Amino acid sequence: MEIPTELAAIFERGELVAAIAQDWQSGEVLMLAWMNEAALSATLSSGAVTYWSRSRGELWVKGLTSGHTQELVSAHYDCDGDAILVKVKQSGVACHTGERSCFYRELAHE
Amino acid sequence: MEIPTELAAIFERGELVAAIAQDWQSGEVLMLAWMNEAALSATLSSGAVTYWSRSRGELWVKGLTSGHTQELVSAHYDCDGDAILVKVKQSGVACHTGERSCFYRELAHE
Repeated sequence: MEIPTELAAIFERGELVAAIAQDWQSGEVLMLAWMNEAALSATLSSGAVTYWSRSRGELWVKGLTSGHTQELVSAHYDCDGDAILVKVKQSGVACHTGERSCFYRELAHE
Repeated sequence: MEIPTELAAIFERGELVAAIAQDWQSGEVLMLAWMNEAALSATLSSGAVTYWSRSRGELWVKGLTSGHTQELVSAHYDCDGDAILVKVKQSGVACHTGERSCFYRELAHE
């Protein structure tokens, strides 16, 4: 599919887009990672959510080694075109610590 | 409250932390914006979710001019300490376009 103009402009500048992964059923926010054009294209064409690993400097098919894959359900992009929300079917857990979500540590509660 | 070490280290480098705002009740992901230390401290102490506006280069108390405020319900930070998830009570809409969520444009659907 065609990548929208705002996202394409970011990729042309060599920048990354923030990608939020959300459980498609429970609505739980699982993680935040980054995508470049190759990662987004791979995600959309294969349905296997793929990020750009900033630490390793390479494409990262989520769960390829752990088996904790993310199957794409839907993808949306935001009003200023620099963030993506992917709703996913998460196999196992999203976080490398073994927690379901990476956001397991609380800063504050009402 | 004390800011966790990982977040403090990011702020000391002059970098920002990505902040995801999620409707505390429906689970809808509303927006992604950025926080520096002052924004996070203001959010936690006042309960009025506050970001750092990268375009304007200033603190941005969400909804201060529009009335579309975000009342903090809870805040979590992620495993590698560079992203925050805030659950909020959203007054009105989160997006400046008038949409409830900034993620209103679809890229793909299963």
